[in-house]
Amino acid sequence: MTAVPTAIRDLTPEVARLRAETPGCAEVAHFNHAGSSLMPQPVIDTVIGHIEQEAHIGGYEAEDDVAARLEAVYTSIAHLLNAAPAEIAVVENATRAWDMAFYAIPLAAGDRILTSVAEYASNALAFLQVAARGVRVEVVPNDEAGNLSVAALADMLDERVKVIAVSHMPTNGGLVQPAAAIGQLARQAGAIYLLDACQTAGELPLDVEAIGCDILSATSRKFLRGPRGVGFLYVRRGLIERLTPPFIDLHAAEWTGPTSYTLRPDARRFENWESNVAGKLGMGAAIDYALDLGLDAIWARIGPTAALLRSRLSAIPGVTVHDLGAVKGGITTFTVDGIAAREIQPLLRLQGINVSISGTSSTRWDMDARGLDSLVRASVHYLTTDDEIERLATAIEQLSNRARSA
Amino acid sequence: MTAVPTAIRDLTPEVARLRAETPGCAEVAHFNHAGSSLMPQPVIDTVIGHIEQEAHIGGYEAEDDVAARLEAVYTSIAHLLNAAPAEIAVVENATRAWDMAFYAIPLAAGDRILTSVAEYASNALAFLQVAARGVRVEVVPNDEAGNLSVAALADMLDERVKVIAVSHMPTNGGLVQPAAAIGQLARQAGAIYLLDACQTAGELPLDVEAIGCDILSATSRKFLRGPRGVGFLYVRRGLIERLTPPFIDLHAAEWTGPTSYTLRPDARRFENWESNVAGKLGMGAAIDYALDLGLDAIWARIGPTAALLRSRLSAIPGVTVHDLGAVKGGITTFTVDGIAAREIQPLLRLQGINVSISGTSSTRWDMDARGLDSLVRASVHYLTTDDEIERLATAIEQLSNRARSA
Repeated sequence: MTAVPTAIRDLTPEVARLRAETPGCAEVAHFNHAGSSLMPQPVIDTVIGHIEQEAHIGGYEAEDDVAARLEAVYTSIAHLLNAAPAEIAVVENATRAWDMAFYAIPLAAGDRILTSVAEYASNALAFLQVAARGVRVEVVPNDEAGNLSVAALADMLDERVKVIAVSHMPTNGGLVQPAAAIGQLARQAGAIYLLDACQTAGELPLDVEAIGCDILSATSRKFLRGPRGVGFLYVRRGLIERLTPPFIDLHAAEWTGPTSYTLRPDARRFENWESNVAGKLGMGAAIDYALDLGLDAIWARIGPTAALLRSRLSAIPGVTVHDLGAVKGGITTFTVDGIAAREIQPLLRLQGINVSISGTSSTRWDMDARGLDSLVRASVHYLTTDDEIERLATAIEQLSNRARSA
Repeated sequence: MTAVPTAIRDLTPEVARLRAETPGCAEVAHFNHAGSSLMPQPVIDTVIGHIEQEAHIGGYEAEDDVAARLEAVYTSIAHLLNAAPAEIAVVENATRAWDMAFYAIPLAAGDRILTSVAEYASNALAFLQVAARGVRVEVVPNDEAGNLSVAALADMLDERVKVIAVSHMPTNGGLVQPAAAIGQLARQAGAIYLLDACQTAGELPLDVEAIGCDILSATSRKFLRGPRGVGFLYVRRGLIERLTPPFIDLHAAEWTGPTSYTLRPDARRFENWESNVAGKLGMGAAIDYALDLGLDAIWARIGPTAALLRSRLSAIPGVTVHDLGAVKGGITTFTVDGIAAREIQPLLRLQGINVSISGTSSTRWDMDARGLDSLVRASVHYLTTDDEIERLATAIEQLSNRARSA
């Protein structure tokens, strides 16, 4: 039986309603969803409601009362990824999620890590840290579109490749890496495939089976629209028990005798006991909110919205859009001749427009290769309206004109 | 010039006011301050206010606006500990604070770690994890009072002792370890002295110079009365640069060239970029609240309050108080003949009385040595009234009577 394809829900007629239940939409033109998005009211209510409950009855007691809801957060994440709840850990943020898995991978001198040109600094720094032990860190070149070259990756594989680690969507541009094609090669090579989905979770459908990744890390605060200070980790069943967490505590392991302990069998061996409970519940609410809209519907709206922004910005004299990739997502990066990104960002903020900056040291291999210093980053979501794009473009046009006439 | 000793502020006349600005005091008789205390209104307002601001203007933008207040959190922690702000890191919780420092200590086969009988499981598990590399983990025996024996510690020291790690106040009883006496020996031995102050921060005055510890970890949510999901780490200047954090990211290090990076010079090398910003501000507010009352004043009230609870409980037939230590703090642990701790806790909660349970696997060396299974843990704070103690004691008396007549 072939599944009958169902039509993807069109969110455009719902944008006004979705904006109405996002208090921030009335305050700012937010182009910083790739930094920290605007929480919808159900998420805000969940977080604040739990903090109030902690204040009223005690933190541990409040946690006991929501035990079932906390379990449901794992189910929601599993649903988001097409994984099992036992393959999920909830941790402080995407960096610590990634760290707990990456630093658990046994690597010896001569082992090879393959990664992408546009890899995020925090991951690259971890690679460089283990490189001091003789591990080889190699950057897979890009193809003509600016994606990681799948053909080049295939050529580089051998039995010493232990890890393939890729940022699904780099922090400094909209490209979406060919995650599933990388996954096929990783599986053939027997390498552990670590996908940093910090910028894609909540933005596009993620399916760990289709992608073929072994480890995936993500955060709550970006496209998922959840609170800060919480993120999650997926580790494939079968790999979990081969990875000893770099840190253990009484949640990750049980102290069974004077000198003995047993690690948890599930992915929660990568967690620790204490957590930001309100944030965890809030992330669950944010994931449920996204799942209710549908990740395919969210992605179907983000793509054209970002394309409109790119085309509008590209048409402004003095503005250069720097995005790469055969497939592009919600992040747009650009420069304006004669005025630095770090000057543009505060000027826009004075006008109620939020953007962020991508500096060289966040993605050094890519930025150096392209001779770029720092970029203005404007990221859209399904909430973003044509009016907001016009507002941003007009503001940039004025800044560019002023810089050109200076 | 000799400092003129000033009288310690008596908090007793202020308890009614302090309870009035703690919403939880109207709802529960809270004897779980050692688990997660009740936040005062200024802390609640700080946390919720910041989350609302994040929702209204964006998470990064809200953080930018409170940059100075976030810096002030380090100053507050430094003030609490008599340290410098550059010696402080703010992290997810006390366990991760402790981990980031402990796992950074270079240890080789044959090196010795000395620790206490009542050490907390999460620390003990980390010791056992590094013991697999040939590091020797040795438990310093207690003295007659149940404290770590300073004389025994002195006898055990040699040049292979690289770490002395002690929980200042164990999770399963009120004893306060002789931290400063241990510090003197650690300094003489040239060992790194790691003090887990999870249960003492906010309860009694902490002075890292007087104690002589090199590393101190603590949490927000316990006696400091701050929010969950945040804690802090102190690392002594001079030691910071000798410790390479087990994980690094773009906040801990700067990516300076294709294969090079530079670690931050201050203690923030143990942090990571993303944080629970609302929680961090809330912890700062909680520390300021405690500093305003005075840690000596807080400690002066907790001691007699806990002593009253111990004496009231000890007088109940069938009840045994299990606290050790020459100096005892706010944690009382006890058992009731004929009824398990895990049955008592929910029965008390039905009456609006919050206590917690200390299980064997949280402090196995101590619990096994004393032949104890699990204990009811009742922890007091300066907020605790004689009426609440009477309420708890009466409830325990009834449970004990019922168990004895069953």
